[in-house]
Amino acid sequence: MSLICFGTVALDNIKSPSGLRKNLLGGSASHFAMSARLFTKVHLASIIGEDFPKKYIRFFESQGVDISSVTVKPGKTFAWNGEYDQKDFNTAITLATELGVLEGYIPEINTEHRNVPNVFLANFDPDNQFQFLKLMKRAQLVGMDTMNLWINIKKASVLKLMKKVDLFVANDGEARAITGQTNLIKAAKALRRMGPKLIVVKKGEHGVLFYCDQFMFSFSAYPVEKVVDPTGAGDTFAGGLMGYLSKAGKVNEKVLREAAIYATTLASFNVEGFGVANTRSLTLKEVDARRKILVSFIQP
Amino acid sequence: MSLICFGTVALDNIKSPSGLRKNLLGGSASHFAMSARLFTKVHLASIIGEDFPKKYIRFFESQGVDISSVTVKPGKTFAWNGEYDQKDFNTAITLATELGVLEGYIPEINTEHRNVPNVFLANFDPDNQFQFLKLMKRAQLVGMDTMNLWINIKKASVLKLMKKVDLFVANDGEARAITGQTNLIKAAKALRRMGPKLIVVKKGEHGVLFYCDQFMFSFSAYPVEKVVDPTGAGDTFAGGLMGYLSKAGKVNEKVLREAAIYATTLASFNVEGFGVANTRSLTLKEVDARRKILVSFIQP
Repeated sequence: MSLICFGTVALDNIKSPSGLRKNLLGGSASHFAMSARLFTKVHLASIIGEDFPKKYIRFFESQGVDISSVTVKPGKTFAWNGEYDQKDFNTAITLATELGVLEGYIPEINTEHRNVPNVFLANFDPDNQFQFLKLMKRAQLVGMDTMNLWINIKKASVLKLMKKVDLFVANDGEARAITGQTNLIKAAKALRRMGPKLIVVKKGEHGVLFYCDQFMFSFSAYPVEKVVDPTGAGDTFAGGLMGYLSKAGKVNEKVLREAAIYATTLASFNVEGFGVANTRSLTLKEVDARRKILVSFIQP
Repeated sequence: MSLICFGTVALDNIKSPSGLRKNLLGGSASHFAMSARLFTKVHLASIIGEDFPKKYIRFFESQGVDISSVTVKPGKTFAWNGEYDQKDFNTAITLATELGVLEGYIPEINTEHRNVPNVFLANFDPDNQFQFLKLMKRAQLVGMDTMNLWINIKKASVLKLMKKVDLFVANDGEARAITGQTNLIKAAKALRRMGPKLIVVKKGEHGVLFYCDQFMFSFSAYPVEKVVDPTGAGDTFAGGLMGYLSKAGKVNEKVLREAAIYATTLASFNVEGFGVANTRSLTLKEVDARRKILVSFIQP
């Protein structure tokens, strides 16, 4: 089944202990696409400015990612300047954000994409996520992500959207912030009560916790020794998860465990390089090789 | 194979969001014994004061734990007053420590216990741990634990002891403090280079990481929703680990994975009650029931 991701396509300047990189292809939708493309046809819906480099347009095309629902508007592409500290790779320090064409944005979509069955609302203004979801006519499986910024300034909109989605993906900090629960199991259960049937809590280096009414599971992350740039790790994870579920065409315990393993594996590639440097060239064969190592690492 | 644990037997006053409890049976050796006793014959070596309650002596006896190498000296039993914060159950706040009979202590042991093959040096002054190890004549498998206090004030003694042991158990904070490595995989490898062949890093709610030259593994913790008092969780873990290895009588990958699963399961019981309240009455049948839930929770 095909999959559409509504999220940002951005230009990132990133500083980490491994160095400084400018004008990287970034944004939640871009990272999502890099892993989802390995499993199914991926369409992106987003907005970019006229300054968006042609090489990145060609890059998406070369990866088989459909960007025909990515609108180009006069103005500048959304840009993010961030930094990571050696001591805490889990938290990005935002140095600057230039909204550019995101200012006053109203989501659009190609008519032909309104029937895509699987939808992921990557990190974005929750009101925009809601507007986008209303454009979709036959959504069967809807996932969403968000971030602390929106939980802080637009919590009502986040909660309203949560009632409309099947799968909620959050990192541990976000799960705690929305629910007010320190204990992650309690937080996952509280998220479930907010609407989504499937709850995924990403714990960075500590892996992932999945919760639904029938079962739950938790896997450690792949043992990465050299984190270069964790930007987009959560989106890469979400792309692997939704991509695998879309390929499977069904959602059950076995498929969810497999999807979470693929998602965890893919996120580990992401953090080993700046931007999409390590995920852009990945083949499913390479992913499978690392997935097997991960499975043996976490096998009880 | 039988097992001896050298550690503290203490009286604890503990305050947590669940309440305040005074004069609890505590200490690293006591918690260690509660889980190790499920797998093998456990001897404790320690020191207590004349104030040590008779009921706790009878309690050890009722649990089949041999305390004939626990010396009674004039003076007060080691006492610890600690507190836990709702927001961070991983870090105990020490309110007061009364060394009592630990002051100027020189380890002793019953002659008959000098041939016990499996030895665990629970958290204690590293010089005392070293002196105790020298008392053991036929040690086959030696494990050790320590804490940040000793890493800060007696690091040379900790490092000297590490060269003499097979198995090193640390929590994530301690592993980082000894090695200076933030990344836990790198920290585990650095610990290995310090001497011990088998490295176990406890990550609290995030479970456990095991490392040796041939393989490594990592399991999430059992999903505990209500943490009452985490005091002794690490010792309970170590007791389960060493107890299971002693019962198996050999150390290989399969046995180590099983031992880590038992250890993780046992630690989850510990944190659900004050002191040894939840581990003192445990049967292997109850542990096995929860172990199966844990295995299904972490099964990839």
